[in-house]
This record gives sequence, C-alpha cells and structure tokens, in this order.
Amino acid sequence: MPELRRDPVIGYWTIVSTERSRRPLSITPKPQAPAAQCPFCEGRESQTTPELFALRSPGSPANGPGWNVRVFTAKNPLLESDSQIDRYGEGVYDVMEGAGRHEVIVETPRHDTDIDSLSIAEIEGVLSAYVARFNALAEDHRFKYALLFKNHGVTTGAPSQVLRHSRSQIIAMPIVPKRVKEELASAKSYFDRRDRCVYCDILRQESRSGQRTVAENEDFYAFCPFAARSPFETWVFPKTHSADFGRLQSSDLGSLARILKQCLGKLRVLLDDPPYNLILHTAPYRHKKRETSWKTIEEDYHWYLQISPRLTRSAGFEWGTGIHINPTPAEDAAQLLRETPSE
Amino acid sequence: MPELRRDPVIGYWTIVSTERSRRPLSITPKPQAPAAQCPFCEGRESQTTPELFALRSPGSPANGPGWNVRVFTAKNPLLESDSQIDRYGEGVYDVMEGAGRHEVIVETPRHDTDIDSLSIAEIEGVLSAYVARFNALAEDHRFKYALLFKNHGVTTGAPSQVLRHSRSQIIAMPIVPKRVKEELASAKSYFDRRDRCVYCDILRQESRSGQRTVAENEDFYAFCPFAARSPFETWVFPKTHSADFGRLQSSDLGSLARILKQCLGKLRVLLDDPPYNLILHTAPYRHKKRETSWKTIEEDYHWYLQISPRLTRSAGFEWGTGIHINPTPAEDAAQLLRETPSE
Repeated sequence: MPELRRDPVIGYWTIVSTERSRRPLSITPKPQAPAAQCPFCEGRESQTTPELFALRSPGSPANGPGWNVRVFTAKNPLLESDSQIDRYGEGVYDVMEGAGRHEVIVETPRHDTDIDSLSIAEIEGVLSAYVARFNALAEDHRFKYALLFKNHGVTTGAPSQVLRHSRSQIIAMPIVPKRVKEELASAKSYFDRRDRCVYCDILRQESRSGQRTVAENEDFYAFCPFAARSPFETWVFPKTHSADFGRLQSSDLGSLARILKQCLGKLRVLLDDPPYNLILHTAPYRHKKRETSWKTIEEDYHWYLQISPRLTRSAGFEWGTGIHINPTPAEDAAQLLRETPSE
Repeated sequence: MPELRRDPVIGYWTIVSTERSRRPLSITPKPQAPAAQCPFCEGRESQTTPELFALRSPGSPANGPGWNVRVFTAKNPLLESDSQIDRYGEGVYDVMEGAGRHEVIVETPRHDTDIDSLSIAEIEGVLSAYVARFNALAEDHRFKYALLFKNHGVTTGAPSQVLRHSRSQIIAMPIVPKRVKEELASAKSYFDRRDRCVYCDILRQESRSGQRTVAENEDFYAFCPFAARSPFETWVFPKTHSADFGRLQSSDLGSLARILKQCLGKLRVLLDDPPYNLILHTAPYRHKKRETSWKTIEEDYHWYLQISPRLTRSAGFEWGTGIHINPTPAEDAAQLLRETPSE
C-alpha cells in the first residue's frame, strides 16, 4: 500500500510507493520495451487490467480489438485502494494511506503515433475520454482532486514510463495538493479585491498585446506565459470563463482538439520532437460538494492546459529557491512558435 | 541584463536570463570540456574573473597558483548588477531587474577530485570559504537572501555546468524566494503555537527513534527526512539551535567537515557516485537588519544542509501537483546508508 507522508514544516506531501521498488538499484530506468511486446497496442488487450472506458467500432466487444481510445487502471498504480482513508500522526509527522485511482488513457491503437499526428476527430475522441473519466472519478466521495497529465518522451525511471505508446494518465487523490491550493487561494484573493477572474484579466492583456500569442481560434487562446518556467511553455485557455474542465461541452471538443494539435505540432517542428508534459489545471472535486470554503471557485478560477517542453533540467538553484531559469523570453518563444508551421 | 518576472497568480519568480541564449538550439547541453582546458584548475587563474577570496600558501600572490580554495564571480552570472534595483509593473505582471551576485567557490586545485575525497582539513577550508562569502554578500544592502548550493554530476544545460571541476556556487538575490518564505512562515507558526523550534522537535524525535539516522557526531546529526522527496535525501543539522549559517563558529568547522565527508562518501559507495545537489537552508539576510517581521527568526528557524541524490526525474505528476514520488522509504534509505562505509 503506498503511503502519503507530509513534511511537518513546509507541508508538502510525498508519495512513498514502497511496492514499486525498495532497493536502490532498481531505480535505474529500464530499456524501452519493443513494440512487439507493448501491452497498449491493439490486439494485446488481455495484457492490461479490464477496460473502464473505450471508444469502439459498433459491435466490437470490450477488452478486444476495434477501439480508438481505451482506458484502464494502471498495472503499477501510484495510488490505489478501495478502503476508507486511514489518517494518523507519528509524533510531529502526518501520514495518510495512499488511497486513490490511477488510470491510463491510451490515445491510439497504433504504437508509433503521437497525439498531434492523430486526426482532429481522433483527438476529439481522446478529449472526450478525458472528460468522461474526470467526471466518473468525481463520483467517488473519497477523492478531492484528480490530476490529468501526459508525459511525452520523458524518462522518469518509474516502471510505467518505459513504454513509448502514446497515452495520458489521470490520478485521483484524497487531498488537494498544496500547489493547487495556492493557485486557487491566489485566484480567490484577486477576485475578492477586483471582482474579476485573474485569468480573464491575463487573457485580455495577452490578447491586446499579442506579443506572446501562439495560436487562437473561436473558443480557445494559446500563449507563452509571461513568467514561463521552461522555454516554450504554452498555456491553452478557454476564452469563455469556466472553472471546471469536467463541464467542457461536446461542442467545444473540436476547437480544443484543433488548437492542441496546432500547439503540439509547432513544438515538434521547431524543437525536433522535444520531451514535454501536458498538465490540466482545473477546479478540485470539492467544489462540487458545495463546501462553504470552495463555493466561490466557479467565479474565481479558470481551467487551462499547460504544455511544458522539458529542455532544461532543474538543479540546486531551482530546488533551493523554487525559482526557475528560462533562457528564452516568452515573447521570443511565442514569435518562433507563431512563425513555425504545425506540420 | 537578466530579468525577474513574477507569475501573477501563484507568485513564483522566474529568471529570464536572456543573455545566456535566445535561440532554442543552444539549450542543448554542451559536451564536457576536457581537463586540459578547465579554467578552474591551478595554473589557469587568468581565465577566471579576479579572485574575491582564496586560501593560499603563505606568500603566493592573488590570481596565481598556490591555493586550496578559490572564489570568483561566475563568467556567465545568473544575476548581476551594480545598480539600484529597478522594479515595475506591466499590466497584471511584475518585473524586477535581475540584480545580484553569482560566485563560484572552487573547492580544490585538482581537476578530478570530489569534495568528499578531500581531507578533513581541506573540507574545513571549503566550509570556511562558504561562511566568509555568505557573510561578505550580506553587507550589500540590496540583497535579501543568498543561496549556497552545489551540483554534483548534474547536467542542467546551462553553459556554466559543463565542467567537471568540483565547486559550489553562491547566488545573492534581491528577493526572499517564495519557497524560503513558506519554510520560515511555517517554522514561525509552529513556534508561536508551541514556543519550540519545529526543527529542534524533529531532531529530538529522530534521535529518539534512530530509525532514520545516517550519521552523528558531537555537533551535527544527519538523517533521512520522513517525507523525503528523493530517494536517499539526507539532512545535516547542527545539534545546537542556530538560525544563521553565517554565525557558524570556526570550532564547528571540523565536525561539519567530518559528517559531510561521511554522508557524501556513503552515497558514493552505496549508489556508485550518483548525481546530487547540496543546498543550504538558512535565515535570509533580512533578519540581520532587525526588520520587525523578521526578528523572531533567531528563535524559530534552524539552518541545515540538504543533500538530494537525483536518481528519479520529475514528470507531469510532480509538476502538476508538487507531490514527489519516492520509491525508497526514508527508514530503508537510512538503514542502507548507515550500513555502508564512507569509503
């Protein structure tokens, strides 16, 4: 059973996932599994846990071929449990049982295809799976937050990361992470002062100046954030204020698929298929429960997707200060991305 | 001129160091310079900026051979300026001129030696250089904080990181980073509630249980922190309460040198010379100025050294939540380190 441990001073949580590896040497990344053994490919459905969601051709049975998108529980879940959540103290320390869900969203049945190479209709399918699983996990009253993310070309050393097959992950957890709480608290404090969403204000300023714009369509706006922590970091925002990704309308899936394909394609062309993380920032599940301290989130928060190429690596300075070093100003990054075709 | 930019929501600062590289392709790490060209080696003193501090054999002139430890300004400083600090807003954004100092502390005249292979007396020399430069930079009224750190075997992609020669860095800056403020605020809030230093309480609990102890001597105590964010993370604390590394007595240098050599040596033997960061956590310069809101730091904060091997790599989950995944519980890591000889 993984364990959540809280630092008694700063308050960050760590997941101690003891079942993954207890010995130092097994931390070394394993070599990539060849395509011939990939359990995420069409035809090897029996090698994964049973599917929780799939977009399938009419009549194809579950856990067999015939799908475009397929979701199942991770084989080595980071968090997992069906039980109630055990919380206790050990002197000055706080511990919580690592209850949660960890699902894998396989974006394509084909092994060597990346999400930005899929058709708009196929990407719409992936996005609809995001929305469906994000909302399904909200039904479990134990979970306060879910992170939806994608690691592309990133080696983490965890056993689940050795496969190339294009996929995203969603991890539901019994806490709202400190980083997320901070973002929500700041957005709330801005709204309290000004009666405006801080992100709507940012979008207005960016759209007026245009110097950090990467791409835009009728529903979404993509730009390099002013204080980008990594070179070519790009944020994709819905133009209409909305705090909850789970309420994304199916009529918006097409325009989100188009801008995502465009942004990821530009990165691939400009930087020669760089490793990147895609991270969803959205309101925690708690606000759905109408808890008093969370009920203002609807008006003061704004969901968005963060795309962060991983071209630099953090070292002592970044770890010690939390300040990142970005060698490429957002204006230069955005101009290069604007001028680059997406394929 | 580098620029500090603040994210308008969460409030983190980013250093946009435009002079290092404006083009995407120059981000790729350069190959290591061969020893024959290393500007940090004895005999090549003219290739660095003029020395600010050195431990030299009697009679040897500055900026020539004959030293054990040598400090100078970095050739590509992250922050640098002699001017007053310009601060301004750009709509919702905050910008500050990247004023600061960035110094390199070369720990040995020999190219292929690491700090833990030096003699105790030589490591004492390095530590005395740390204290001297930390206190010298405090004299500049523009600086509120300095981070002292060391990257060992870590590739960051920055041009200053391509050399192997063993060294530390100290960067003085015009802000107290958000991460540091959080740590100080939490320590203060603990003290306000209990009239005890939180770190003294942690040390007492760790020393009683002993299960996370790595090493110990008369003045210092080293252990793996309960919520360690990376496998084999180790913290080294002075046993006697002290908030300010700058007040380290010369009588304590020997015992600090001994425990540091021991901890780093154990890591090298157990994990085959892993990359690591060494980070100093200490009170900001502000408290010296007796500003009201900082004057309690003397009693509620406690300086320490953090040693973090970099065996895993952060990806989408860590970036999105701030929660790190540690496959090796602190108790297991500490036991392995305790049982490992330091050479």
